[in-house]
Amino acid sequence: MIRTKYWGLLLGLLSLPVFAAEPAEMAKNIQEIRISLDSVWVVMGGILVFFMQAGFALIESGSVRSKNSVNVLMKNYMDACLGGVVFWAIGFGLMFGVNHSGWIGLSHFAPDQLDSWSWNLLFFQMMFAATATTIASGAMAERIHFVAYVVSAAFVSGLIYPVFGSWAWGSLFEGEGWLKAMGFIDFAGSTVVHSIGGWVALAGIIVLGPRLGRFGRNGQVHFLPGHNLPLIALGGFILWLAWFGFNAASTVNADVSIGRIALNTHLAACAAAVAYMLFALMRRKAILIRTTINASLGGLVGITAGCATMSPVYAVLTGLIAGLMVSVLPAVLEKFKVDDVVDAVTVHGFCGAWGTLAAGIFYESKMFDSSIIMIQALGVGAGFIWGFGVAFVVFKVLHLMLGGLRVSPQHEQRGLDYTEHAELSYPEFQRDVTFETDNITQRH
Amino acid sequence: MIRTKYWGLLLGLLSLPVFAAEPAEMAKNIQEIRISLDSVWVVMGGILVFFMQAGFALIESGSVRSKNSVNVLMKNYMDACLGGVVFWAIGFGLMFGVNHSGWIGLSHFAPDQLDSWSWNLLFFQMMFAATATTIASGAMAERIHFVAYVVSAAFVSGLIYPVFGSWAWGSLFEGEGWLKAMGFIDFAGSTVVHSIGGWVALAGIIVLGPRLGRFGRNGQVHFLPGHNLPLIALGGFILWLAWFGFNAASTVNADVSIGRIALNTHLAACAAAVAYMLFALMRRKAILIRTTINASLGGLVGITAGCATMSPVYAVLTGLIAGLMVSVLPAVLEKFKVDDVVDAVTVHGFCGAWGTLAAGIFYESKMFDSSIIMIQALGVGAGFIWGFGVAFVVFKVLHLMLGGLRVSPQHEQRGLDYTEHAELSYPEFQRDVTFETDNITQRH
Amino acid sequence: MIRTKYWGLLLGLLSLPVFAAEPAEMAKNIQEIRISLDSVWVVMGGILVFFMQAGFALIESGSVRSKNSVNVLMKNYMDACLGGVVFWAIGFGLMFGVNHSGWIGLSHFAPDQLDSWSWNLLFFQMMFAATATTIASGAMAERIHFVAYVVSAAFVSGLIYPVFGSWAWGSLFEGEGWLKAMGFIDFAGSTVVHSIGGWVALAGIIVLGPRLGRFGRNGQVHFLPGHNLPLIALGGFILWLAWFGFNAASTVNADVSIGRIALNTHLAACAAAVAYMLFALMRRKAILIRTTINASLGGLVGITAGCATMSPVYAVLTGLIAGLMVSVLPAVLEKFKVDDVVDAVTVHGFCGAWGTLAAGIFYESKMFDSSIIMIQALGVGAGFIWGFGVAFVVFKVLHLMLGGLRVSPQHEQRGLDYTEHAELSYPEFQRDVTFETDNITQRH
Repeated sequence: MIRTKYWGLLLGLLSLPVFAAEPAEMAKNIQEIRISLDSVWVVMGGILVFFMQAGFALIESGSVRSKNSVNVLMKNYMDACLGGVVFWAIGFGLMFGVNHSGWIGLSHFAPDQLDSWSWNLLFFQMMFAATATTIASGAMAERIHFVAYVVSAAFVSGLIYPVFGSWAWGSLFEGEGWLKAMGFIDFAGSTVVHSIGGWVALAGIIVLGPRLGRFGRNGQVHFLPGHNLPLIALGGFILWLAWFGFNAASTVNADVSIGRIALNTHLAACAAAVAYMLFALMRRKAILIRTTINASLGGLVGITAGCATMSPVYAVLTGLIAGLMVSVLPAVLEKFKVDDVVDAVTVHGFCGAWGTLAAGIFYESKMFDSSIIMIQALGVGAGFIWGFGVAFVVFKVLHLMLGGLRVSPQHEQRGLDYTEHAELSYPEFQRDVTFETDNITQRH
Repeated sequence: MIRTKYWGLLLGLLSLPVFAAEPAEMAKNIQEIRISLDSVWVVMGGILVFFMQAGFALIESGSVRSKNSVNVLMKNYMDACLGGVVFWAIGFGLMFGVNHSGWIGLSHFAPDQLDSWSWNLLFFQMMFAATATTIASGAMAERIHFVAYVVSAAFVSGLIYPVFGSWAWGSLFEGEGWLKAMGFIDFAGSTVVHSIGGWVALAGIIVLGPRLGRFGRNGQVHFLPGHNLPLIALGGFILWLAWFGFNAASTVNADVSIGRIALNTHLAACAAAVAYMLFALMRRKAILIRTTINASLGGLVGITAGCATMSPVYAVLTGLIAGLMVSVLPAVLEKFKVDDVVDAVTVHGFCGAWGTLAAGIFYESKMFDSSIIMIQALGVGAGFIWGFGVAFVVFKVLHLMLGGLRVSPQHEQRGLDYTEHAELSYPEFQRDVTFETDNITQRH
Repeated sequence: MIRTKYWGLLLGLLSLPVFAAEPAEMAKNIQEIRISLDSVWVVMGGILVFFMQAGFALIESGSVRSKNSVNVLMKNYMDACLGGVVFWAIGFGLMFGVNHSGWIGLSHFAPDQLDSWSWNLLFFQMMFAATATTIASGAMAERIHFVAYVVSAAFVSGLIYPVFGSWAWGSLFEGEGWLKAMGFIDFAGSTVVHSIGGWVALAGIIVLGPRLGRFGRNGQVHFLPGHNLPLIALGGFILWLAWFGFNAASTVNADVSIGRIALNTHLAACAAAVAYMLFALMRRKAILIRTTINASLGGLVGITAGCATMSPVYAVLTGLIAGLMVSVLPAVLEKFKVDDVVDAVTVHGFCGAWGTLAAGIFYESKMFDSSIIMIQALGVGAGFIWGFGVAFVVFKVLHLMLGGLRVSPQHEQRGLDYTEHAELSYPEFQRDVTFETDNITQRH
C-alpha cells in the first residue's frame, strides 16, 4: 500500500524543512531511524539466509542420481517449511527464552505478542535454524524415508539446534547460556549452525549405512556421480551469496564494521578454493568442480565464527586451511565407509570446528591466547557431543519406529522420486530408468 | 564512481566530529537520512520483486514439456521488458496520477521529471505491475501465440492492472481511489496484484481452450507432466525470496515493523506447505513437489493483503487455509476442463481472494468485524469483475485479430520453441522430438 | 551473535527515550547512522554484484555444448576465487592507492589495516574487478586451457582492470587518475568494467582462433547451439538483478537518488529487448531467446556509465540503441571469423563504448556538449588500447608458454569437461558423447 509521503514530496519539490529542530523531537527521530536501519539490515540478512535453502537444495539435487532428485528437493523444501513452524512454536523459546540455568530457554513459545524489534530477530534466527536443519538432508540422500526425514528435521529445528544455541547465544531476555558466559566466540555460527548440522548428518549416515553399490564387498569404493553439475555450481554461488547475509548481518545492528566482515567472508572462500586448486595441481590430479565448490563452502563455514574478530590476512589463512581440509578429509571418511553424498560432515562439521578454533587462535586483540583457545575447544567438543549424541538417538529411535529409517532396497534401486513422490524430475529424459536401476547391483 | 569520503576517512582515522551540532543543520541531516533510508528499503524491495520474474520463468518453464520451454521463458522475459516500458509510459499515470474521480489516474504519463523520492516509488511499483502481468503466462502456456501474448501482456501492464490499482492504492498525488476511500485493506496486493493476475489467467484459459491431449473425448483427464522439476523447485525458492521484498517493503518506509511482516510472510508459506503435506499424508497420497511448492505460494499470496495487520498466529491460520485450497481446488477446476498449466488461477486468483478476506477477518485491532469483511468482499468482487471482464474482451479481440490467439494444432504438436523461436532448449537431448510429437494424438 | 538490545526492548515495551537529547551526542549519533546506512547500501550493492558471477556462469554454461559446461563453470568459479585474492593483494592498491602520477596507484597492497569505512569500498570494488575478469571466460569457451585461462584471469584482476580503473576512478587516498581529472564520466563502469572485459575477450578470441567446426573452409558459418537455454535465461535474470546493485550502489552513499538510477537501469534493459523484438518482427525473423537476453544485457551495459546523469527518456533511448547494436553486430563480427561464444565483445565491449559516449551526449545538465563527448571518446579509446593491447600480449605470451593457450583438437572434440576435469555435467544423459564428438569434423 503506497502512502503519500507528504514530506518526501515537499523535500523534492519545495526543499522545505519538515523535521522539527527541537532537541527532544530530534532525539526521538534519531532513535527511530536507528532502530529502523537495524531492522532493515537484520531483515535483509534474514532474507539472504533464507536463500541458503535454495543453495542447499540445488547442490543436493545435483549431487544425487536423477532418480532421487525430486526427493531431495522435497526434503529441503519441507524441512524449511516444517522447521519454520516448529522453530516459531518451540525452538525460539528454547534458544532465546528466559534462561536462568544457562542450559535451556523456557519462555516465549509460539510468540504472538512481542516488542516490535524482537520480531526482526526472530525472523533472522528462524532462517539460521532452517540452515542448521537442512545440512543433513544432502548427506543422507538417496536412501532415507521421506516422512522419517521430515520428523528428524523437526527434532533438529525444535530441539537439537535451539538447545545448543541457548548455550552459546541465549538469552535475548533474562539469563545467559553457559558457553556464552565463558566467553565462547562463535560470531555467526561455525559451531552453533554448521558443526551441529554436520554432526547430525554424521549420526544419520552411520545409522542409515551407505547407499547400495557405494562400497564393494572387497573394499572397492564406487563413486556415484551426481546427475546435474550446473545445478551444483549454481547452488554454490547461491550459498556464497547468502553467506554474506549470514555473517555480516549477524552484527544484528547496522554499523560500519559490516564491510570488513563481508570482505573476510569473501576472502576465506576465495582462498579455500585456490588452496584446493593448487593442491590438485601439485598432485597432478583433475580439478573437480564438486570439490572446488565444497572447498569454497568449507572456507565460508570456517570464517563464520571469527569473521568479525580477525583481520583479512587471518581470514585468508583460515580459508586456506579449510580448503585443504576439504581436499583431504572426504577420502579419509570414505575409508571408514561413511557415505556422505555431499561431504557435509567435512564441509560443515569439521570446517566448522576448525573455524571455531581459528576464531580463538586469530582473535584480533589477543592472538594465540591458550585460555581463549581452550574455551573454543570446549565449545567445539560440547557441540559434537550434543549434536551427534542426540541426533544418533533420534535416528535410532526413528529407525525402530515408522517402519525403519531406510527405504527398501527395491525402492532405493527404483529411485525415491518414483517410490515416494510418484514424480520424475525429467520425465522426457529418463526413459530407461527402470532398466538401469534394475541392473545397478550388477553394474557395480 | 568512487568518491573520496572525506568525513568517512576522518571518522575512521582521526575520529573527529564532522557533522555540526547546530540544531537546524542536524534537523536537515536527520531528514536526509530518513529519506535515504526509506529509499534504500524501497529500492531493495523493488530489486527483490524484480527477481519474481525469474521465479515465474523457472516454474513455468519447468512445468511445460521441453518443446515449449523456450517459448514460455521468452513470454516471461518479454512481458517484463515490454511491461516495464508500458507501465512507465502509461500505467503509472493511470494508477498513481491525479485521480479526482476515484476511478482512474490522469497525470504523470511517461514521467521524465519527478521529485527525487517518487522515482523510488515508480521503480518499486513497476516491479509490481510486472508481477501482475506475468502470472498469466504460465497458465496459458504451450498453446498461445507469442506475439498475441505479448500484446495481451501490454494490456495488463498498461490498463487492467493500473486501473484496478488506482481504485485500491491511488493516488500518489491528488485524489483517492474509491476502494481506498472505503477503507479497503490490501497491504501488498493479494487482490491488486495476485487475484487480478489470476483472473486474467482464467479469462485467457477459457478463450484459448485446453491443450491438445489434456482432456479425452470421454471425460478422461491426462496430466501432461512438466519436463524439469528442479527448475520448478528453484523457481519456488526464488519467488519466496522475492516475496519478502514484495510484502515487507510495501511499507514504503523503513521502520521496525518490517520484521513482523517478513515473519508473517514466512510463517504463512510454511504453514501452507505443511497443511498440504498433512492433507496428502492423511489421504495416503504421494506428496507431490509441484503441489507442495504451489501450496507455499498460495500461502504467500494469501498473507500478502494482511501481513502488516495480523498477528503471527493468524498468519499461520491464513496460510493453512490457503494450503488446503491449493490441495483441493485444482482438481475442481480440472472437472470444468480449465487447463491451467501452473494452477495460477488457484494460487493467485483464489488464494488472493481468500487472503483479502482474511486481512479483514483477522484485522488486528477489529477482528471479525462484518463491516470490514464486507468491504473486503466488495474489493474481491470488483477485482474479479474488472480483471476477468476486461481480460476476456482483450483475449477475445486478439483471438479474432492477428490470425487467432492460439497456434495451429501442427505447431502445438511440434512445440512452440521450434515453430515460434527456431530454438530448442536442449538441442543435444531432444533428438526424437519430432517423432514423439507426431504421435501425441495417438498416445493420449 | 545476538546481543540483547536494551534500548530496542525499551522502545518497544516502554516507549522511553534512550538517546540523549544533548546536541553533541546527537551529532555523533547522526554521523554514526549516516556511515552505517552508507555501509549497508554499499555492502548490499557488493553482495548483489557478487551474484553476477552466477549470472555469467549460467549464461556461459548454457551457451556451450554440454561436453564443455563444467569447464566453463569452473572458469567462472575460479576466476572469482583467484581474482578475489589477487585484487585484494595487488589490484586494489594499483587502482585506488596513492596515485600522484595519475597513471597508477602505489599503496595499500594486501591491506590488513584500513579505516572501517574503506573496507566497505574494498568489498564493493572487489566484486567489480571479478565482473570485469569473468566477461572473457564465456567468449573464449570450449577451446582454452583451464590453467592458462586462470592465469590470464589473474592478469585481468591484478593488472589490466585496476590500472585502467586508476585512470578513471582513482584514487581513494591521494592523487587523481588522469581521465578522472579530465572529467571523464563513467558512473558505474560501462568502460571501466564492461568495455575492458569485452576488449580482453576480443584479444583472447583472436589469439585462440575459432572453435573447430565453427567456420567452414568455403566461408560457411556454422552456429554451434548451446546445450541448455533455460540456464541462459536464468543467467540473464540474475545478471539483471545484480545490475541494480552494480549501478545504484555506485553512489557509494545511500541517498534519495538511487531510485532514479535503478529506474534508468531497468528502462534501458527493457527498451533494448523491445528494440530487438521489433527489429526481428520487422525483418520477419524468429525472436531468439539468446539475442533477447543479450539485447537486455547490452542495454544494461549501455546505461551503466550514464545512469546517474541522464533522465529516463534518454535512458530508454540509450537502451534502444544498445538493443539494435546487439541485433546487428554479432553477425558482422562473425564475418570476420570472430568466434565469440556468448557475444561478449558486442554486449560488453561495443555496448560499453556506446554507453560511455551516451553518458556524455545525454549528460543532463549539458546535453550534446562536444567537449564532454570528446573526453568520453578519449576514455573509450584509451580503454580499447589498454584493454585490448595488454590482453593481447598476455594471451600471446601464454600461448607460447605453458604448452599453448589452446587445447589439442582431440581434447576439443572430446570436450573439456572430460579432458580437463574428469567430470561430466550430466553423466546419465551424455552416454553417446564420445561417438558424437568423434564425428564432429564430418558433421560440419
